Amino acid sequence: MTEFNQYLRQIKGLNSVAMAQAQARLDNLAKPPGSLGELESIAVKLAGIGGEMFYDTTKRCVIIMSSDNGVVEEGVASAPQGVTYAHTLNFTKGITGVNVLARQFNTDLIIVDVGVNGDINHPMVVNRKIRKSTYNIAKGAAMSRDEAVNAIITGIKAAEDAVKNGYKLLGAGEMGIGNTTTTAAVLCALTGIQPREAAGKGAGLSDEAYRHKVDIIRTALELNKPDPADTLDVLAKVGGFDIAAMAGVFIGGAVMRIPVVIDGFISIVAALAASRISPHVKDFMFASHASAEQGYIHATNALGLKPCLHLNMRLGEGSGCPIMFAVIDAACAILKDMGTFEQGNIDDEYLEAVKDEDFHIRGL
Amino acid sequence: MTEFNQYLRQIKGLNSVAMAQAQARLDNLAKPPGSLGELESIAVKLAGIGGEMFYDTTKRCVIIMSSDNGVVEEGVASAPQGVTYAHTLNFTKGITGVNVLARQFNTDLIIVDVGVNGDINHPMVVNRKIRKSTYNIAKGAAMSRDEAVNAIITGIKAAEDAVKNGYKLLGAGEMGIGNTTTTAAVLCALTGIQPREAAGKGAGLSDEAYRHKVDIIRTALELNKPDPADTLDVLAKVGGFDIAAMAGVFIGGAVMRIPVVIDGFISIVAALAASRISPHVKDFMFASHASAEQGYIHATNALGLKPCLHLNMRLGEGSGCPIMFAVIDAACAILKDMGTFEQGNIDDEYLEAVKDEDFHIRGL
Repeated sequence: MTEFNQYLRQIKGLNSVAMAQAQARLDNLAKPPGSLGELESIAVKLAGIGGEMFYDTTKRCVIIMSSDNGVVEEGVASAPQGVTYAHTLNFTKGITGVNVLARQFNTDLIIVDVGVNGDINHPMVVNRKIRKSTYNIAKGAAMSRDEAVNAIITGIKAAEDAVKNGYKLLGAGEMGIGNTTTTAAVLCALTGIQPREAAGKGAGLSDEAYRHKVDIIRTALELNKPDPADTLDVLAKVGGFDIAAMAGVFIGGAVMRIPVVIDGFISIVAALAASRISPHVKDFMFASHASAEQGYIHATNALGLKPCLHLNMRLGEGSGCPIMFAVIDAACAILKDMGTFEQGNIDDEYLEAVKDEDFHIRGL
Repeated sequence: MTEFNQYLRQIKGLNSVAMAQAQARLDNLAKPPGSLGELESIAVKLAGIGGEMFYDTTKRCVIIMSSDNGVVEEGVASAPQGVTYAHTLNFTKGITGVNVLARQFNTDLIIVDVGVNGDINHPMVVNRKIRKSTYNIAKGAAMSRDEAVNAIITGIKAAEDAVKNGYKLLGAGEMGIGNTTTTAAVLCALTGIQPREAAGKGAGLSDEAYRHKVDIIRTALELNKPDPADTLDVLAKVGGFDIAAMAGVFIGGAVMRIPVVIDGFISIVAALAASRISPHVKDFMFASHASAEQGYIHATNALGLKPCLHLNMRLGEGSGCPIMFAVIDAACAILKDMGTFEQGNIDDEYLEAVKDEDFHIRGL
């Protein structure tokens, strides 16, 4: 726990001086104040993160945490567990959804095996396996408290390594059959909402299978009794290695003072868990897209962040992050490249225009 | 009217064969069916527009219609009328919001003067001036019916010229001090909602000035009595050259069978007007961002299109279009570059993984 607490002690809030500088510049650009909405908010937050006016988003990556979940033996997922293994290898082939979107928006992928139920041994997959699959949360705790801490530290170190390799903008994604079930259980434990509100149909469950999933989540919560005030207890008892490691990526972003973009349902619940562990972590996060998974809205409300993209996506993999990187690029470009009112010479041109005899003015 | 009707007769609906092909390919990609949400819908719609599986969005532009509105003499805008002139020239300097966002997303700008109240004479501004400013809608019709038709044809021809120059994806933007007032009046006339629901605070009105704006819109509607069933009558009596010309761009997109992206409040009301003139025009439109202007939601509901971006923007200029182009690029990339289930070899890898003794499967 010492190493973990050392990380947490490094986290500090945003740089308010840099934020004020960025805001002052935005207010002097040739546009009605605030008229670029979230693009302005993003630019100001980035200044607070980086500690200076401009933020360079050129080198960015999505960190994908792959892991298996013991609860799939309850029949809560529409795909077999082996898909976690196969699809983790697919990330190395460049053919998945997140591969395509990452290429489209100049984004690298870092693929981390934190608990895939099989031996991967691939040079493009970072082996940080805690164990092959968690235990079935419907029958006991997913992992020990120590394993939960190790999974979080794995995520922190993944963020740390990324920053050492020059990345200045991260996204947190995952691959893990069954992880909408564990995620829903974590969300219920952290927020007090009911399983039927937290659980969605994942990648494609029937109505009957969905009711079964809700029952399994309820069973897991009743059996494990996770303590809502102790996020590590929640992650250990009803979470997964993927969720815990992603929470670590968010914490790592705050430690290293770089922004981390949230993907969909699993990612935002990991973000919520991270913010419960250390509240300032939230200052370094950006929501991306509103997942079609119904629990997402509860998590985003609890976290207090609003997604910019409404794309009805529910793929996972970190697939929403690269698209949000494009929005963040746009925010940076506005702050850096727009002209000021003076450069716009609105007064001069205006006076010139007034010379035209047809020209009649009535301002407020 | 003959030329106008000739254009309208060329408009046909989407190509359902190409759409079915695109959908079949999407359903065979290595992801849960439908899990990429709007990205999938966009790709299918583009196939329907272009008449073949893939759509090339490389060359795209935003067409900005600049014009002045006589109603500004009622004190409905927070900026003086001369800003329309000055800012239209600012587009040529590359310093405005839309310039920066266009550069960020490889987008060209086409700037058209359809009624700026001053002589522009700039090589980068296309002179299609109908007249210097419309008349004050609080005192009579904004323009004659013939002028409204001419403004629409100007927009159709702008789209036609763009396509001749190789553009395959358009956005429709505007610059015109006072045009949130005329736009709100058009929206009320087309949908029957009240001025207080349609009008927003534009670029930054005080509460008192806002109430005055609502009164002016009500006066304009009561005085001019636009016929809701006759969109040309609505545009002529309470619209503007900018709105009518933008409606023309949407119609032109449908004529030329290329997609046109809607920007914010003014753009979506122009899109609504275009769809009332010819219903199939809607098939060629994409909403981009949910404008912060409160009338936007009424227009988008009436039109039946949902924006993908929630950025709380209210700048105009077509500034939301380039960001949406990035989302459309993403949709095209998914359809074109993702691997199929076969390429993902999910079955093979899965069987290989099963050999591992720790591996236990339970699918549905």
